[in-house]
Order: sequence, then C-alpha cells, then structure tokens
Amino acid sequence: MPDSRDIGLELNPNYDANGLITAVATDRATGELLMLAHMNADALAATIATREAHFWSRSRSKLWKKGETSGHVLHVTDIRIDCDQDAIWLIVDPAGPACHTGERSCFYRRIDGDALSPVE
Amino acid sequence: MPDSRDIGLELNPNYDANGLITAVATDRATGELLMLAHMNADALAATIATREAHFWSRSRSKLWKKGETSGHVLHVTDIRIDCDQDAIWLIVDPAGPACHTGERSCFYRRIDGDALSPVE
Repeated sequence: MPDSRDIGLELNPNYDANGLITAVATDRATGELLMLAHMNADALAATIATREAHFWSRSRSKLWKKGETSGHVLHVTDIRIDCDQDAIWLIVDPAGPACHTGERSCFYRRIDGDALSPVE
Repeated sequence: MPDSRDIGLELNPNYDANGLITAVATDRATGELLMLAHMNADALAATIATREAHFWSRSRSKLWKKGETSGHVLHVTDIRIDCDQDAIWLIVDPAGPACHTGERSCFYRRIDGDALSPVE
C-alpha cells in the first residue's frame, strides 16, 4: 500500500545507507536523458537554492557543482521526486556537453545484443 | 581520462557490489521520466531478449517483469548505456501507468522549496 512518503506533499527524501539519493537530468528541450549521478542532502539543498545541478562525487567524496571546471553547468528548470522519494529528476537547460567524454549525453551508445553502437 | 568502458563498443556493465545497475525508463512519445529501478544481469538480459522491461526487486529479492501483475508492461524501443556503464536508459512505450500509485509517472510531484506539489 502507498504510504505517506508515496502520496504526501512533504519533502522527505529516502537517502540510502550512504546518505545518497539517485538523481537524473534530462534536457528540457529534447527530453534526452543527459546523465545520472548521486546527491547527498547538501547537494540537493544547493541545487534547490541555486537552480544549478549539484551532486555528491562518490569517487572524490566531495560536493561538486556540475560544470564547476568545464563551465558546462546544468540550469535547473524543474525538480521532481519519485513516489518513494528515493530518486530525483532534474529538468535542465545544459550549458554544454553533459558527458566527460564530450558527448552531449552520457547515454550516447545503444545496446545491440552483446555490443554497443554510437547513437549518432 | 576516459577508459575503454567509457568509449569502447563492448557491453561491459559495471554492476555494483550487489550485482545491480540503475535503470531508468522514459516515455518515447513524451520524453517524460517514468520510473527508476535496478537490474541485475538476468534482468538486463531478459529486457534485451524480450524488449519488455525487467528489473530486480530489491525488496522482494526476485526478478520481475514490470507489469507482470498489473498488465502495465513497458515495451522497450531502445536501450542505451552511459559512459561508465553503470546506468541503463530504456526508451519505452508504456502499456499503462508506470507508478504503483496509478500515476502515469513515478515523478508526479515537483519540489517547491521544502514542500511538494503535484505536477498536474
């Protein structure tokens, strides 16, 4: 049965054992999925306050603003949360490629059976 | 630096310590983010083979086909993987509401400061 977290209107993120919640960003203009990363409470608060996407870097164990070095920030136009409040959806206007490889989206390869092929 | 997992054309999913990879589904027609869940290798293989979304239920510790009881299956039109191969993007035609609450998308609430509001 749905509980209050599922259907209520109180923000109550369900962080995992490491204090993290999964966040994905899609392009407002194209609907394309750009990237998936993780947030801690500080990253979510910074994203809400600044309307620029912030995440928690698990590899570097630090808060990071997406684009802080590259300039490819994600301007956040809408923030949504899922039913059980363990995932965040950012609808964004990207200032540049979202992927560290230089691709517009991190999801630039299609799975074809056992192999991958570039989408474009 | 990008490594072969990032830029190569070999499918080599980077499962976590529990053998899982995060998967999100978006609606092919609207671009809307419908749901986020997890897959193990069997769920990914079943999804590739059947073109219907399968996931691993962490709460029930079993493979499940989305919609196996509700009929609200997700017909998969495209499967993509991200740069470091630890996330899957399914582009789908949903047969019904994706959310167990009956909403079309699990992400049916917007974060407004400290509160939530329904999107529609």
